[in-house]
Amino acid sequence: MSARRLDGTAVAAAIRSELAADVAELTRRLGRPPSLSIVLVGDDPASKVYVRNKEKAGAEAGLAVTVHRLPATAALDDVLSLVRALNVDDRCDGILVQSPLPPAMGKQASEQVFDAIAPAKDVDGFHAENVGRLVQGRPLLPPCTPTGVIALLEREGVRIAGTHAVVIGRSDIVGKPMAMMLLQRDATVTICHSKTKDLAAVVRTGDIVVSAIGRPGYVTPEMIKPGAVVVDVGTTPVEDRGIVVRLFGPESPRVASFDRRGSTVVGDVHPAVAEVASALSPVPGGVGPLTITMLLRNTLEAARARLAPAGR
Amino acid sequence: MSARRLDGTAVAAAIRSELAADVAELTRRLGRPPSLSIVLVGDDPASKVYVRNKEKAGAEAGLAVTVHRLPATAALDDVLSLVRALNVDDRCDGILVQSPLPPAMGKQASEQVFDAIAPAKDVDGFHAENVGRLVQGRPLLPPCTPTGVIALLEREGVRIAGTHAVVIGRSDIVGKPMAMMLLQRDATVTICHSKTKDLAAVVRTGDIVVSAIGRPGYVTPEMIKPGAVVVDVGTTPVEDRGIVVRLFGPESPRVASFDRRGSTVVGDVHPAVAEVASALSPVPGGVGPLTITMLLRNTLEAARARLAPAGR
Repeated sequence: MSARRLDGTAVAAAIRSELAADVAELTRRLGRPPSLSIVLVGDDPASKVYVRNKEKAGAEAGLAVTVHRLPATAALDDVLSLVRALNVDDRCDGILVQSPLPPAMGKQASEQVFDAIAPAKDVDGFHAENVGRLVQGRPLLPPCTPTGVIALLEREGVRIAGTHAVVIGRSDIVGKPMAMMLLQRDATVTICHSKTKDLAAVVRTGDIVVSAIGRPGYVTPEMIKPGAVVVDVGTTPVEDRGIVVRLFGPESPRVASFDRRGSTVVGDVHPAVAEVASALSPVPGGVGPLTITMLLRNTLEAARARLAPAGR
Repeated sequence: MSARRLDGTAVAAAIRSELAADVAELTRRLGRPPSLSIVLVGDDPASKVYVRNKEKAGAEAGLAVTVHRLPATAALDDVLSLVRALNVDDRCDGILVQSPLPPAMGKQASEQVFDAIAPAKDVDGFHAENVGRLVQGRPLLPPCTPTGVIALLEREGVRIAGTHAVVIGRSDIVGKPMAMMLLQRDATVTICHSKTKDLAAVVRTGDIVVSAIGRPGYVTPEMIKPGAVVVDVGTTPVEDRGIVVRLFGPESPRVASFDRRGSTVVGDVHPAVAEVASALSPVPGGVGPLTITMLLRNTLEAARARLAPAGR
């Protein structure tokens, strides 16, 4: 038995083609393309890649994407000033500040910056007001990754209502909002984490398992109820060839790919889970493409809401 | 075997006596007592009782409590105008609009009113921004009932970290924030509800069970793992003598009390659960007194934050 593949790349492509009509409509009504402002501080290599991918996806979708680059030496106040200027800039529909900020900015820097973004332009969905509205079942701009997971499950015909869903990980950007969104769709939801006792037994109660902890291959077949649907949100860059060989086997294409590039991105879910699960989202090619698609959708929603403010 | 009683009345009294020093300090610094404004719309008998209890508890604690009464025929705009006036009234520290609003005001009325309350004065903790901050683990004004449950457990020496906590009910004001607060304290958390399959089996996995569904006696001993700690948040007014007799037995003091008053308040948890659980919060005398105490504490926190605005 081998699990059905939940094809995030295909689902993302389908949603993006549907969004084209919205982009055209909004461009007409705004008199300009819907616009996304990305703030990138410093030189973190992974952040640069993420920003480039978002920029590219936005441009391909017909959005105007502007990347505001600040040096790693920038002060927190510089970032806050930029964000406040974008908040009141009528040509800016959505704002995204790429994480992480340089450590020198201080521990609370991210929190202060995310709090400063106008909730109506917060296309990452990280602002407390957007988090609260999600919990209350009336999201304005929901967080991109868990929204992408829901889209993947729904488009791939996975029933959520009435299931027992287990979320591994309790981060603010994936675990907690994921649990709330599954609950909203009538799943019974368990959230487990590093302090959970006998985590394997808890995960084994899940009809749907979403893992978002960032530990390569942590979720093994023994932890999965036969026939469960498994969604892998983990994406850990791996530079240790031994890990890739151990997970995928010495002859696998993943090892060949690793040997060409010197690194690869590995999910939380061990490949052998495919022997037990009924469906499985791969890494890469699973949730990742959906996350960026949801960012595009949020940008369109933010632009639309600015055209016709709701009676809030 | 009989469960230890989690004595909410005693815990609430202890916390209120600790709050006296805060009331004195804030009264000195403000030049007036910390103040709570309660908005009561219409003539719902239960609402009147709740407001009277809050008014009484506030006055006993040395707070200035003002009840703003509007007739059942008031327009939504009247309520919104009052709330907006209180938002900018420097003598008002906390605002509470008693639920429910008259049905004639429309389905979205409560939502619109709660959205209109300034988050910094939202002593019920219902505003989306307060909900979001709770989820993010940095509450300003947390919702009173789940905060009261946490206080009851902690003061009664119940360990939360490392347990499996099951929350029955997914309301915005109890179930969802309760789950987030237990998670924050390192419990593994399951949220179940009316759409949960084999709810008894799910609840039986709980080391801590919090029930907040408002169904008298619904949680029976078969649903409880022996030795679990059970917190009863349900409070349903019962006017059917048969239910009271069936739950408590014909000779019980509860039936005698019912016969004197013509009604009684019954929790979600069947009295026989005391034979299985290691600890149990009663109704009445469990979470109820804590809820009002947390309202007083939130009012003091709101007053304190207005004196020294944090760097938000």
